[in-house]
Amino acid sequence: MGGDHGPSIVIPGLVFAVERLSGRDVRFLVHGDEAVIGPELARFPTLKDKVEIRHTDKFITMDVKPSQAMRRGKGTSLWNAVESVKSGDANAAVSAGNTGAMMAISMLLLRLAAEIKRPALTASWPTSKGVTTVLDVGANVESDAEQLVEFAIMGAAFHHAIQGKDRPTVGLLNVGSEEQKGHDDVRQAHALLRGTEFEFDYHGFVEGDDIAKGTVDVVVTDGFTGNVLLKTAEGVARFFGAEIRSTFTSGPFALAGAVLASRALGRMRQRMDPGAVNGAPLLGLNGVVVKSHGSADAKSFASAVKVAVDLASSDFAAEIDRNVKRLSAVLADPAQEGSIVESSQ
Amino acid sequence: MGGDHGPSIVIPGLVFAVERLSGRDVRFLVHGDEAVIGPELARFPTLKDKVEIRHTDKFITMDVKPSQAMRRGKGTSLWNAVESVKSGDANAAVSAGNTGAMMAISMLLLRLAAEIKRPALTASWPTSKGVTTVLDVGANVESDAEQLVEFAIMGAAFHHAIQGKDRPTVGLLNVGSEEQKGHDDVRQAHALLRGTEFEFDYHGFVEGDDIAKGTVDVVVTDGFTGNVLLKTAEGVARFFGAEIRSTFTSGPFALAGAVLASRALGRMRQRMDPGAVNGAPLLGLNGVVVKSHGSADAKSFASAVKVAVDLASSDFAAEIDRNVKRLSAVLADPAQEGSIVESSQ
Repeated sequence: MGGDHGPSIVIPGLVFAVERLSGRDVRFLVHGDEAVIGPELARFPTLKDKVEIRHTDKFITMDVKPSQAMRRGKGTSLWNAVESVKSGDANAAVSAGNTGAMMAISMLLLRLAAEIKRPALTASWPTSKGVTTVLDVGANVESDAEQLVEFAIMGAAFHHAIQGKDRPTVGLLNVGSEEQKGHDDVRQAHALLRGTEFEFDYHGFVEGDDIAKGTVDVVVTDGFTGNVLLKTAEGVARFFGAEIRSTFTSGPFALAGAVLASRALGRMRQRMDPGAVNGAPLLGLNGVVVKSHGSADAKSFASAVKVAVDLASSDFAAEIDRNVKRLSAVLADPAQEGSIVESSQ
Repeated sequence: MGGDHGPSIVIPGLVFAVERLSGRDVRFLVHGDEAVIGPELARFPTLKDKVEIRHTDKFITMDVKPSQAMRRGKGTSLWNAVESVKSGDANAAVSAGNTGAMMAISMLLLRLAAEIKRPALTASWPTSKGVTTVLDVGANVESDAEQLVEFAIMGAAFHHAIQGKDRPTVGLLNVGSEEQKGHDDVRQAHALLRGTEFEFDYHGFVEGDDIAKGTVDVVVTDGFTGNVLLKTAEGVARFFGAEIRSTFTSGPFALAGAVLASRALGRMRQRMDPGAVNGAPLLGLNGVVVKSHGSADAKSFASAVKVAVDLASSDFAAEIDRNVKRLSAVLADPAQEGSIVESSQ
């Protein structure tokens, strides 16, 4: 496991992760520079028997492009972390580093799971009802109907594994909730989702404001829209944070109010950032790879580690496989196909 | 002018509009039921010489589909309002009613301006630096490269007319700021925008969080993404509002803080809702049509009226026309086309 902030976040993060995973036998391979990791590790005796350092002094910096990472990434901490999943040395990899490089190296080394066409990067979004899973938030720039249905399958299996909910509800993001709304891809995906028996409950189309409302457990969209809207919401959340600060320094009454309400305000800010529920897996591969937010602190990094552990010890991969086979059966049946094309007209 | 809340919002809204347009000779045709509008109007003597009621007892309700509105909308208040722009009786139309019906009837009666391929619904988004114009937020479900460039042209002309800024900066929404990011349509639009001399400054790609930062004056995206992200941000804003309320009732200190800071909090909430800067024009037609938010109050409705008046008295249509001609010249030049296709590979 490498990290953007490096061992000063990752190692204390593992301490928090061990606490939160109490009773579970979890061990960590930490990939990186032993000269830096070693002293940091020595500060936390509880980690002593749980962490093994896998030394490398090669790293992928944030400005490396995915194509460069694939060609020249061998031997870097990120590469080695993913490689350790492939070899079976590890059950999951977590990285707080370069997202594009992580996706590219993971695709290259772990390959897509059987019958999955495209992977999906997945975000956990705080809502008024809890947490909504949103995908794809950036593994793809375009997605056809079949891929959108795959995202629904993978998102539901992830939500089931991490949030513990049987038969999650799934919504397909669109510009309106009526049947005839949207472009061909979302309407065809809608017909496929409605007409197929999966291990989740398809709710139908949802709109942008349904995400924060928590209308469904899983919101499915293409990677372009998902990436843009997650970043837009993060931007709005930061704007709110800044406005709250400036609001509470706008006068003596407001300032006094802020002092009185500071604890509640702190909790609120933390709860509301769409980037705050840390741990975004790249789903659809033969192995678990989880992205931690680049700016994550130790506690937040521990959340990403917990997501990785929970995923690796769940049967989400088998659940995805069962449901993708149902999709393949529908797509292979010309009668079904006909009705789907018709209903999308 | 019709309205969702009807005359009880629209007529007081006109009073505020007259105040804000002080010194300008503006008159209003109010399309709707005289029996309802008349008594409301009688309450505001200052409007007496400024308002003429155009009676109809036919209305388009919120559940009417765009196709129904086109076929059966004749004689309704919305139809008559747009018709009055076409006939020259009015310089602009404002409606707080059914958005889809408004777009459909406007397209049918006013038609697209010369050389414009698709209209665009435009939102004004509060940011940390002021207001950013975002389009398209829902007039289309798909947009090719040429249409994205048209949106840039129309958005810049709108921002110039309404925010008063010469040569606004324009950004194209994408999943990253590097040249090679995104799908073909955004990369081709990027090449066209970079390679053509328009009356605005093209900034390049922007990401979702750049909207709230106010990185550029105008953010261009396809109608699917724009609609979804505007509604997502509105949802996040409402979630924040609810969280602020619950935060400030979570304990005695927080409650006391809220009382002290209540005025500042109220101002903040109003400033931050992406739907709060009211008045969303449908650009690209032979005439000005402005959508007011369905839940707008009288002051907010007045903002939409002011947008309509400012647009109608600006030369934004001529500015659009000049820039679209520049685009057409580039597209008609095979040498240019070649270089654009090449640079988007």
